[in-house]
Amino acid sequence: MTFDNVWFLSDYGLDDEFVGVVKAVVRAIAPHVHVGDVTHQIPPHDIRAGSLALARSMQYLTLVPSVVLAVIDPGVGSDRRAVAVEAGGIDGAAPAAVLVGPDNGLMASAVAMVGGARRAVALTNDEYHLPAPGATFAGRDIFAPAAAHLCAGVDLAELGPLVDPITLLPGILPLSRQEEGSVTGEVLWVDRFGNIQLNVDPDDLLLMDDPLVLVSGDKTRTAVRARCYSDLRSGQIGLVTDSYGLVSIALDRRSAAEELRIGSGDSVTIKPAE
Amino acid sequence: MTFDNVWFLSDYGLDDEFVGVVKAVVRAIAPHVHVGDVTHQIPPHDIRAGSLALARSMQYLTLVPSVVLAVIDPGVGSDRRAVAVEAGGIDGAAPAAVLVGPDNGLMASAVAMVGGARRAVALTNDEYHLPAPGATFAGRDIFAPAAAHLCAGVDLAELGPLVDPITLLPGILPLSRQEEGSVTGEVLWVDRFGNIQLNVDPDDLLLMDDPLVLVSGDKTRTAVRARCYSDLRSGQIGLVTDSYGLVSIALDRRSAAEELRIGSGDSVTIKPAE
Amino acid sequence: MTFDNVWFLSDYGLDDEFVGVVKAVVRAIAPHVHVGDVTHQIPPHDIRAGSLALARSMQYLTLVPSVVLAVIDPGVGSDRRAVAVEAGGIDGAAPAAVLVGPDNGLMASAVAMVGGARRAVALTNDEYHLPAPGATFAGRDIFAPAAAHLCAGVDLAELGPLVDPITLLPGILPLSRQEEGSVTGEVLWVDRFGNIQLNVDPDDLLLMDDPLVLVSGDKTRTAVRARCYSDLRSGQIGLVTDSYGLVSIALDRRSAAEELRIGSGDSVTIKPAE
Repeated sequence: MTFDNVWFLSDYGLDDEFVGVVKAVVRAIAPHVHVGDVTHQIPPHDIRAGSLALARSMQYLTLVPSVVLAVIDPGVGSDRRAVAVEAGGIDGAAPAAVLVGPDNGLMASAVAMVGGARRAVALTNDEYHLPAPGATFAGRDIFAPAAAHLCAGVDLAELGPLVDPITLLPGILPLSRQEEGSVTGEVLWVDRFGNIQLNVDPDDLLLMDDPLVLVSGDKTRTAVRARCYSDLRSGQIGLVTDSYGLVSIALDRRSAAEELRIGSGDSVTIKPAE
Repeated sequence: MTFDNVWFLSDYGLDDEFVGVVKAVVRAIAPHVHVGDVTHQIPPHDIRAGSLALARSMQYLTLVPSVVLAVIDPGVGSDRRAVAVEAGGIDGAAPAAVLVGPDNGLMASAVAMVGGARRAVALTNDEYHLPAPGATFAGRDIFAPAAAHLCAGVDLAELGPLVDPITLLPGILPLSRQEEGSVTGEVLWVDRFGNIQLNVDPDDLLLMDDPLVLVSGDKTRTAVRARCYSDLRSGQIGLVTDSYGLVSIALDRRSAAEELRIGSGDSVTIKPAE
Repeated sequence: MTFDNVWFLSDYGLDDEFVGVVKAVVRAIAPHVHVGDVTHQIPPHDIRAGSLALARSMQYLTLVPSVVLAVIDPGVGSDRRAVAVEAGGIDGAAPAAVLVGPDNGLMASAVAMVGGARRAVALTNDEYHLPAPGATFAGRDIFAPAAAHLCAGVDLAELGPLVDPITLLPGILPLSRQEEGSVTGEVLWVDRFGNIQLNVDPDDLLLMDDPLVLVSGDKTRTAVRARCYSDLRSGQIGLVTDSYGLVSIALDRRSAAEELRIGSGDSVTIKPAE
């Protein structure tokens, strides 16, 4: 089993050379490999945001079996485990992916998205590490070599001792809740365009008639359902089923997040207007 | 006819996973393809800026025949057309490029740059779409698969019905105008270094002697022609023929746009000093 | 001798299409080549910052022999030389790298990192240039073609006349200094996480006992040594041996640079607390 693609997500940013150095390490070990960026602009140390971006991407990153390298790692160099997790492909099929990164919850939702963990190892076999004078860049010294060796055909079990997948740190995905004709969700993500993704299923709004009311903190606003942004009139707040199948609050060609001053993690209640 | 390179421009930004997901879709369908970034930092919904960046790049992106994927698409999910346009290569030659994106004027100048449209189709054949729960990410669900299938050798005509190229939305490129020994142009672009590109040909200044005067709004400044930035004295404003052959207002190692407070779309008149 | 990888560092930023155009030129000339980004977010014209980023990356970029394309070039179009420098691999071995860029000190430390210059040429053979209407984009018109032709097997000496490596502009790396039980260094780099890298070797602190005192300008703060960030208590300032083997000032999950208001180029003295 070899892989041609490593998909790489981190909080390394693009100002420093971190991402380039990681890619150079991968390509030195596995010259045939394409390393693609998911994003590196996750806010520093923000495991929740990284976990959600990875979960949203996962079904596309694994259209063909791939290695996913995910590094948001505030505990780098400590005794948090560095792991590789083979996911999906139960019942004899090839795995959908091997995820490589810290065992801090970052990869949990993504692993679940493709069918759950099948095997996992702790990346302690230092034959597959790069030697380094300090312990602060595991992306370069531990994770990149592991990803590359997996692409080159090294078996997962070579990289370190098997660990029981049940011991991997779980992720925490908030659930929306329904109450007397309303639904209350949490903002999972504000995208570049200012669209506000909620953990709310469009079906949860089926029994409500337009117009709807959005309540967040002390703000109350009227909204209507729309199929796409440009179906909205200027200034009108819309609830659009987004490309991941979740309810998203949006305006046409303007930032809903700026207009409503709502951000990631905020609570939003949707209910029919009186 | 197959292609090895997809050149990708968008307003997706780099903070979200949009670009990575599009690339994963392309590489799943056409594993041999290299997807290169033109830029993804076009301001959200700014078709004019995207169109100009694409036109500036086009002759280089098509040094070998390539697919160009261009997605600035405020009308995503509406009845605006999604199209693929084969451009250049008239008279039996291979096309210079196939451009894939929304029919909203974004690609018009780039198409013209390489010889005009030869064939175009509307991307309505959903055998070549990814199924999706919402209509807001055509880059992933419609444009990326089209680009990838073209690279894999699928003929343009398979992707949907032919449309008459004359019906494609035109782009609007502003023209400079000459008047009694002066020329008035528009700022097309301010680059990272603060250089101000005008839609003015250096030949339009041939009959004027240095020093010249720049007038923009209520600002008037003296400028001289220079071959390169470092030929300018500290603080001196220069008119430099830029790498696209247009007149650019520049300072040495400083931002002319900040110094002059001039931005994209502003009008600038150049004339000889009295 | 051919190369499969070009590693590309610049101050071009990612908002404009500069980086994409350079890559398109390379891949048109040498279709097999992978062009990887080191970073393009070096502040405009900042040769010092670019030089340091390149030096930090160099041993990883050359794990396999590679071409390194480095373009921070305020003197573009002037009589500053455009050069290619073959480095490392003395005594009959293949070179570690060929570095391509302006002769302005940018590449000097990187060249030294891999064993010094072996041969160098001035890139004046315009058979290997792209014709262009202006002289302001040497990255596209001179450096990218040179890098690509080297990858395609063109010998260095074809690109222009040999120049004596001793005439290449040197880089300037500041040295720390020891004085009566203290060491004074300079901030080389503040990374995305706010960690402050000093040009100080951890061994220089061996004879000092914790706690230590940091003095920078009129600020004095207590610090302790730590192996990794998460070994620090909340708010505690640490001295961590970073991944390049230098002393770095850090906090756990917070920016030391913001907390201490220290930036690149600042002076910091470390000494034992009284």
